[in-house]
Amino acid sequence: MPPEVGLPSRHRVPGLPERVTVYEVGARDGLQAEAVPVPTAAKVRMIRELLAAGLPMVEATSFVSPRWIPQLADAPEVVAGLAEAGLDLARHPVLVPNDRGLDRALEAGAGALAVFVSATETFARRNLNMERWEAVEAAQKVTERGALEGRPVRGYVSMVFGDPWEGPVAPGQVAEVARALLDAGCYEVSLGDTIGVGTPGHVGAVVDAVVAAGVPRERLALHLHDTYGQALANVYAGLLAGVETFDASVGGIGGCPYAGSATGNLATEDLLWMLTGLGVETGVDLDAAMRAGLAVTTLLGRPSPSRVVQALRPN
Amino acid sequence: MPPEVGLPSRHRVPGLPERVTVYEVGARDGLQAEAVPVPTAAKVRMIRELLAAGLPMVEATSFVSPRWIPQLADAPEVVAGLAEAGLDLARHPVLVPNDRGLDRALEAGAGALAVFVSATETFARRNLNMERWEAVEAAQKVTERGALEGRPVRGYVSMVFGDPWEGPVAPGQVAEVARALLDAGCYEVSLGDTIGVGTPGHVGAVVDAVVAAGVPRERLALHLHDTYGQALANVYAGLLAGVETFDASVGGIGGCPYAGSATGNLATEDLLWMLTGLGVETGVDLDAAMRAGLAVTTLLGRPSPSRVVQALRPN
Repeated sequence: MPPEVGLPSRHRVPGLPERVTVYEVGARDGLQAEAVPVPTAAKVRMIRELLAAGLPMVEATSFVSPRWIPQLADAPEVVAGLAEAGLDLARHPVLVPNDRGLDRALEAGAGALAVFVSATETFARRNLNMERWEAVEAAQKVTERGALEGRPVRGYVSMVFGDPWEGPVAPGQVAEVARALLDAGCYEVSLGDTIGVGTPGHVGAVVDAVVAAGVPRERLALHLHDTYGQALANVYAGLLAGVETFDASVGGIGGCPYAGSATGNLATEDLLWMLTGLGVETGVDLDAAMRAGLAVTTLLGRPSPSRVVQALRPN
Repeated sequence: MPPEVGLPSRHRVPGLPERVTVYEVGARDGLQAEAVPVPTAAKVRMIRELLAAGLPMVEATSFVSPRWIPQLADAPEVVAGLAEAGLDLARHPVLVPNDRGLDRALEAGAGALAVFVSATETFARRNLNMERWEAVEAAQKVTERGALEGRPVRGYVSMVFGDPWEGPVAPGQVAEVARALLDAGCYEVSLGDTIGVGTPGHVGAVVDAVVAAGVPRERLALHLHDTYGQALANVYAGLLAGVETFDASVGGIGGCPYAGSATGNLATEDLLWMLTGLGVETGVDLDAAMRAGLAVTTLLGRPSPSRVVQALRPN
């Protein structure tokens, strides 16, 4: 056996950002899609470990109805656990799907919020049970209320690159929704490739359309899924387009629709590996992030789909 | 369940090649690393199906010593099988590690050849049992003999981005070896990320160094491994650097050092998906390539590690 490989060597690419924010979504977007229930204490530990690894933002949970997502029924207890641990709750946004969710989140003491809308009509109807623009207006109202309460609000747009019912999505359709979230007061808009069909040229086209609609580049994030293996190539296209925030899920957890090792979410570890090689600073310790991810995938009872983890820490 | 997703929508990126060559290595580089033996007839069928899918070059086998790689001990029978099927053997290079391999390949009637060298000293000693430059000179002699016999010869360089013993590899070290292969008569030089540690900026740096050493860009190929999940991002960097030939292995076969679904080789299917989205022509039918790959991974008794296959044809 050859000696263990360390980190990749650094090769800067002119024009790339010097530093980016890795926005960790595993505890919310990851765990909401996993069948195995994770105890509240383990969730709090996961979030603390990710924070300790240097991740600047670790989304904590969702105040969606427990009838819809029982995995996150303990949202108030997770927030309470983070508060007890003395963490800065502004670094741990919680998703709020509607006014009722916002009420519960504020009551629990959440320090930052996230709302979501769909770029497409069909997904809005099926997932949110509203017309697309009706859902945008509802999210705008939640955002405004949250902002009035002094909470920073992040906006998510789903189905940005394609919709399984509607097919390809026009970048202009994404841009108008992203702009509406910004106008309502979101500090950042995360563009989600919910079904993973984006490719690098498509990423550039969408970012350009959203920027042209008046959303500043530095307030954009990309939330890329690896369903077709394209997530890191798409991150690279996003970096070349000047995006400075990327969502990822430690251990690639969440969204395993088919095989045990198929991923939906981009694994934080694989993203960090590429950024390290590109000489783009993140402030995150890859090894510590890997350990936090392994603790979770072990709880979930399956190997990590992260290629980096598979290579460095076969499990 | 939503309806099945088709191909990604096309978004051209200015400056990318209009068309690239996907050089299929599964039958050689893939099968040489697989533990399960594959019958000769199945190899010939695999190669024929890949050719029928539109892949312009399908490397067939290796005339390495059967003591070293028993999986490919049937190299003469594979070549005979392709000849019997009336295929153009110039489209099916065979690897020849040395003079003895060249003798056997010529005797078997091979129509095109491939040689390989190492960019690093340690790997040359461990894998080829020679000094690095001694190995380069040996490959040059094999190339010259092959060319005299009227066979086109492809050159492979291993350990281009990193070596598990030596760490990062200087791009200049790669460039001198690549240039030596070109000078000996290789029509193309394939730069191999044998351990998968390359990242996109590194790819650009290596391509630029090799081109600066006098190897024309259009005679370069990239052979990228997905060990750390970077292969497609690296392909994208290669496209941006003007590379027009990419090696890939159908079903991602070969190089599964750790987990059953971890890949070494980039899966042809995932590469084709990205190229389709980028509007880069390949002439390959993705669905037919997927079927050929599934036939092989079924024989090997494991799921395909290709994300595209996992998403479209859960197996």
